[in-house]
Amino acid sequence: MTSVLFDRIGELTTNVSEFGEGPTGLRRHAALVVDDGAVAWVGDAADAPEADDRIDVDGRAVLPGFVDSHAHLIFAGDRTADFTARMTGQPYAAGGIRTTVAATRAASDGELRANAQRLVAELHAAGVTTFECKSGYGLSVTDEERSLRIAGELTDEVTYLGAHVVPTEHADDVDGYVDTVTGAMLDACAPLARWVDVFVEDGAFDADRARTILTAGAARGLVPRVHANQLAHGPGVQLAVEVGAASADHVTFLSDADVDALAASDTVATFLPGADFSIRAPYPDARRLLDAGATVALATDCNPGTSFTTSIGFCVALAVREYGMSPTEAIAAVTTGGARALRRDDVGHLGVGAAGDLVVLDAPSAVHLAYRPGVPLVVGTWRRGELIAGRR
Amino acid sequence: MTSVLFDRIGELTTNVSEFGEGPTGLRRHAALVVDDGAVAWVGDAADAPEADDRIDVDGRAVLPGFVDSHAHLIFAGDRTADFTARMTGQPYAAGGIRTTVAATRAASDGELRANAQRLVAELHAAGVTTFECKSGYGLSVTDEERSLRIAGELTDEVTYLGAHVVPTEHADDVDGYVDTVTGAMLDACAPLARWVDVFVEDGAFDADRARTILTAGAARGLVPRVHANQLAHGPGVQLAVEVGAASADHVTFLSDADVDALAASDTVATFLPGADFSIRAPYPDARRLLDAGATVALATDCNPGTSFTTSIGFCVALAVREYGMSPTEAIAAVTTGGARALRRDDVGHLGVGAAGDLVVLDAPSAVHLAYRPGVPLVVGTWRRGELIAGRR
Repeated sequence: MTSVLFDRIGELTTNVSEFGEGPTGLRRHAALVVDDGAVAWVGDAADAPEADDRIDVDGRAVLPGFVDSHAHLIFAGDRTADFTARMTGQPYAAGGIRTTVAATRAASDGELRANAQRLVAELHAAGVTTFECKSGYGLSVTDEERSLRIAGELTDEVTYLGAHVVPTEHADDVDGYVDTVTGAMLDACAPLARWVDVFVEDGAFDADRARTILTAGAARGLVPRVHANQLAHGPGVQLAVEVGAASADHVTFLSDADVDALAASDTVATFLPGADFSIRAPYPDARRLLDAGATVALATDCNPGTSFTTSIGFCVALAVREYGMSPTEAIAAVTTGGARALRRDDVGHLGVGAAGDLVVLDAPSAVHLAYRPGVPLVVGTWRRGELIAGRR
Repeated sequence: MTSVLFDRIGELTTNVSEFGEGPTGLRRHAALVVDDGAVAWVGDAADAPEADDRIDVDGRAVLPGFVDSHAHLIFAGDRTADFTARMTGQPYAAGGIRTTVAATRAASDGELRANAQRLVAELHAAGVTTFECKSGYGLSVTDEERSLRIAGELTDEVTYLGAHVVPTEHADDVDGYVDTVTGAMLDACAPLARWVDVFVEDGAFDADRARTILTAGAARGLVPRVHANQLAHGPGVQLAVEVGAASADHVTFLSDADVDALAASDTVATFLPGADFSIRAPYPDARRLLDAGATVALATDCNPGTSFTTSIGFCVALAVREYGMSPTEAIAAVTTGGARALRRDDVGHLGVGAAGDLVVLDAPSAVHLAYRPGVPLVVGTWRRGELIAGRR
């Protein structure tokens, strides 16, 4: 492995306060060296050391690689018709997930792998260097197990989501399905995953069943995360805090007690603006959480039903427009926020020793992610000092 | 010029009813031949004729090249700070335009040209094959004239917008500025433009002055278009219809009488969702216009102050999410709608004899433009049968 100097950086977001100004540690006219896959030096371009390779960033903005802490990439099929129907009048119901379950079960491993790899390539092109990947469209022991196996080929951040919805064949025997999720399915899946997740919502799982599943997962070494309060007020946030979940995700409908609970906990509040956008949900008031001191992340929720986007930039733009987040807060939420939601301290920032994961934008400032909505600004995405998307 | 066969098209949007189904003339398993820059044949892939060159579209969706009927590409400088301030509390005021006027006047021709060329490359990458380009950041005889000269290097659809705002040096002599816009500035600019435009709004130009300017332009052969009803209810739409404007643009605030006037006229209603997004304006109810029978277009409004996007796909996604347009209506609005707003019948559709301008999406359906928000789906953009962005 050779060392790489990123030289003539116009604006470097380090997320390290001693390296620069403001909450994102902004440094202008900067340079950065990645050596053996890790950040080895950060400073002024005028002081840049020699390295084996040199990338002339030519005044552009550089950020830590984006961390997408919530994605569903293992599925087959397409829900275009579902999307069109919803956008022209029909409401979203969690049951739509079952359409994708049927397609996923019918697909070969190769089809699932190819579809996921295509989406991973899109994530890389959008600047994502670390991403989470859930199962949840298999919902049988064999289909959840193979979903996690394929997910594990793509990322270390693998999440067991056998409790996405109750599959059709268990519609009259929900407790029997919970027994499977906490029994044979967990036996097959626990060795393949880091995280366990449950969709807590009317039409999916209630708090008691979700607690049973998260507790069983935790007993097998999986760390909880929760789909919470997406479609209505409910118990998801409180449960997430109660079980010490790394993250409560969606959090579109929040009571004052939910805000207080998140602010007083280590559970990250992960907003998924693409889902709010594509199901035409009301947008949450992120300011309440930020002002209360909660840690906030933004993620794509990439999935074929409700948020078929891989664009972190789009999520940033929406969060600024609709959630009342400042550009700086939104940028922090897709870097340090995502890292916190995955309990990673090696990514999401560019401190010395951090992963050499970074994004070069065709823009003078990271704020352009919000200022230039819809424009694919990522010029190059580097992971561990290697180019994984775009160009030098 | 050689002939090119686009073969194995999964879904072809023709916008020609006899070629396919529904209002956008959708045809599946299709093929299309461009010969000498124009569409020469459309039919089933099974019947595709020979051609000099063959592009295997491999089941993807193909659409007419997008027509962006409202863009401000001739400027210098950056309004990132302005954007951040607005998104964190300050309202938008038309006077912000003057910041860009100062930067534009200070820039060399080469700087203006390079900036505009960069944005044109982005438009091409986003699937745009025909675009309008306005002046309006010069606001002096020489700076408007050179803006239009540079615009004319980029497109045939050049718009004289000397009446964008009143420049600072004329703040106490608005009528004097109108005299210039209709006098020496018009003398210099009329030979360089096809269209004349006025920003009709409090803080810009009132109806009487706008009428004077549009009428003077029309007398020199320029066809009117109007920035109308962006920030509040006002006389812009009625004036646009009165003077026979090709398009009334923004139309965010519409009275019943405005809807009736547009529906009964040949004036296209052009929505600019990027501007509504980036100034956090309320979104207009496009359904009222569509249901009343008005012709509707969507355009980027690309400009550094209020809508710094070049992404037609983003505009489509926003129009579906926020305006109540169906995916099909939004797709029509960026093809036939844009063409109508520019009074062009050679673009915006793929009838035999039309321009060989088309977009290949990395998607099985054009609906993915809305279903996959923020994702850069354009694989290749072709104009007159030549690849201008992306790959074969």
